[in-house]
Amino acid sequence: MSRISVLGLGAMGTALAATLVRKGHSVTVWNRTQSRAKPLVSAGAMIAATPAEAVAASELTILCVVDYAAAGAVLAEAQDALRGRDLVNLTNGTPREAKDLADWAETKGAAYLDGGIMAIPPMIGDRGALILYSGSNALFERHKPSLDALAESRHLGEDPSLAALYDLALLSGMYGLFSGFLHAGALVASSGGKVTDFLPLLLPWITAMSGTLPDLANKVDSGLHDRSVVSNLAMQRVALENIARASREQGIAPDFIEPMLRLATRRIAEGHGSDDISGVIETIRRQT
Amino acid sequence: MSRISVLGLGAMGTALAATLVRKGHSVTVWNRTQSRAKPLVSAGAMIAATPAEAVAASELTILCVVDYAAAGAVLAEAQDALRGRDLVNLTNGTPREAKDLADWAETKGAAYLDGGIMAIPPMIGDRGALILYSGSNALFERHKPSLDALAESRHLGEDPSLAALYDLALLSGMYGLFSGFLHAGALVASSGGKVTDFLPLLLPWITAMSGTLPDLANKVDSGLHDRSVVSNLAMQRVALENIARASREQGIAPDFIEPMLRLATRRIAEGHGSDDISGVIETIRRQT
Ligand SMILES: NC(=O)c1ccc[n+]([C@@H]2O[C@H](COP(=O)([O-])OP(=O)(O)OC[C@H]3O[C@@H](n4cnc5c(N)ncnc54)[C@H](OP(=O)(O)O)[C@@H]3O)[C@@H](O)[C@H]2O)c1
Ligand SMILES: NC(=O)c1ccc[n+]([C@@H]2O[C@H](COP(=O)([O-])OP(=O)(O)OC[C@H]3O[C@@H](n4cnc5c(N)ncnc54)[C@H](OP(=O)(O)O)[C@@H]3O)[C@@H](O)[C@H]2O)c1
Repeated sequence: MSRISVLGLGAMGTALAATLVRKGHSVTVWNRTQSRAKPLVSAGAMIAATPAEAVAASELTILCVVDYAAAGAVLAEAQDALRGRDLVNLTNGTPREAKDLADWAETKGAAYLDGGIMAIPPMIGDRGALILYSGSNALFERHKPSLDALAESRHLGEDPSLAALYDLALLSGMYGLFSGFLHAGALVASSGGKVTDFLPLLLPWITAMSGTLPDLANKVDSGLHDRSVVSNLAMQRVALENIARASREQGIAPDFIEPMLRLATRRIAEGHGSDDISGVIETIRRQT
Repeated sequence: MSRISVLGLGAMGTALAATLVRKGHSVTVWNRTQSRAKPLVSAGAMIAATPAEAVAASELTILCVVDYAAAGAVLAEAQDALRGRDLVNLTNGTPREAKDLADWAETKGAAYLDGGIMAIPPMIGDRGALILYSGSNALFERHKPSLDALAESRHLGEDPSLAALYDLALLSGMYGLFSGFLHAGALVASSGGKVTDFLPLLLPWITAMSGTLPDLANKVDSGLHDRSVVSNLAMQRVALENIARASREQGIAPDFIEPMLRLATRRIAEGHGSDDISGVIETIRRQT
């Protein structure tokens, strides 16, 4: 069992620290608002008075705060304690932020591993949770047993920016799902339906339509959007128009559906009405 | 086995007609562009020279064209043949369009059933395909065995507009999924990754995050967006900002992610930063 410090005790930091305590590690915690540490101390964690004290207490420190501005502020207070320590940063950020913090940690003599948590707090320590890592592979190998206590651990490479990129890509997929869900829910509710009653229709439908993603992914990778098309974009634009029109009639603002309608319309104007919807990706890509 | 006519032989009409032929029905087909009927005639279908001739040939006519303007044009040509016939319209449209066409069909003496196909053409006649119906229950019961040959059949009620509403709600969910997929794919591809290689990460993640929809649906139904929140909106807005920023850095236009970022920001400005993301639905609803 290892000594591990956790900096940041929001919903996620608390779930991480509680799981490590439960699995028998010797856990030291710190949070800006100290009162949030109380339940963890009752469960057996030690509390540190400062970030530096927390970093000094353990070979491994896990940082999980709201953003990189907060991460930077916390680490600035701990910088003299970082030499020879292992730092795992699970704060959400951009690939560039991850790279910059990795460079900074190196100047302080700390090994650095960046991570993206693909789970909500109640999933931590349970099946289904995944954490993507990138950065120091030596650090990853040293602490893999401890990290595996939190979630399935996947190391994407030595480049510290990789985990952030894949994290943000997966979150983009999730926010698409949530956007579609909220628009669908608003339509159903506007006609007196309950959204909970609608889920037995929606969930199998999402599963079925996820089954079309491998074909769309092939089309994106090959750039061949006009091969074996069974749902052409011109037809799909009509359906998108129908959604937008019905939404207005029901008093629902079309914000969530509008980008696909607009970009599909642009793509059709460029001559791709008989292509698949995969081709819409070309409208949001860097035009080189 | 029944006599069934199919009007409209695009990708979907062809799949419907081919499945009915394969299951042994006596099928008559018509399409504006007659050449598209050839493979069906080879498979055993009869061809009608006009929509009226097709409607006259069978007790049941299934109509599946690109939109209601086309549906209206086709039916106008067949109106004198409609009396005493059963008409199933599987053309995508709005609830209002479905209601108006049902009223028109009644004046022509036809029974009318509206439908929304929740499948892509290759799924027709296979497990996983679903067609939502609304309108004449008598017609539905008369032809249920034939309709079941196409997909699982679900009748939502006598109000002919219901199938269109639930169809468009489900399509909203799908277009959310596709929007998120395309944005995620663009991010991955921008850093040299293959989208097909990304799917083994994305698909289980979509399944896992679909698991949070029942909780969000409960919050929408109750209007209580501040109960047992494990992923607060202020934190999620930071992640959305990170996606938008990383996208710009990678040369990806933020169109697909922008609505959720904008609406979450508005919701937070209204004082709901510690609520769940379910509360964003209030920003797109009719303000009463
Ligand atoms: N919750 C989830 O579903 C989830 C899922 C995956 C990843 N994540 C990621 O996990 C990280 C934390 O999320 P969370 O859900 O725990 O957020 P949260 O519940 O809102 O907690 C935010 C944490 O950040 C700290 N903080 C904010 N500003 C600070 C500053 N200037 N200096 C020091 N500490 C500061 C807060 O301290 P105080 O208590 O003093 O305010 C608190 O510990 C985020 O990067 C998030 O994207 C969360
Ligand atoms: N494909 C799918 O994945 C899918 C899934 C679910 C539901 N649907 C729905 O099924 C319906 C048909 O879609 P599809 O995929 O078959 O579209 P499609 O392949 O583009 O075919 C369009 C059909 O509409 C006909 N049409 C267009 N304008 C017409 C007009 N003015 N008069 C007469 N006929 C006209 C076309 O005739 P021509 O051959 O003469 O052009 C063709 O038969 C749409 O409402 C769509 O939303 C499709």
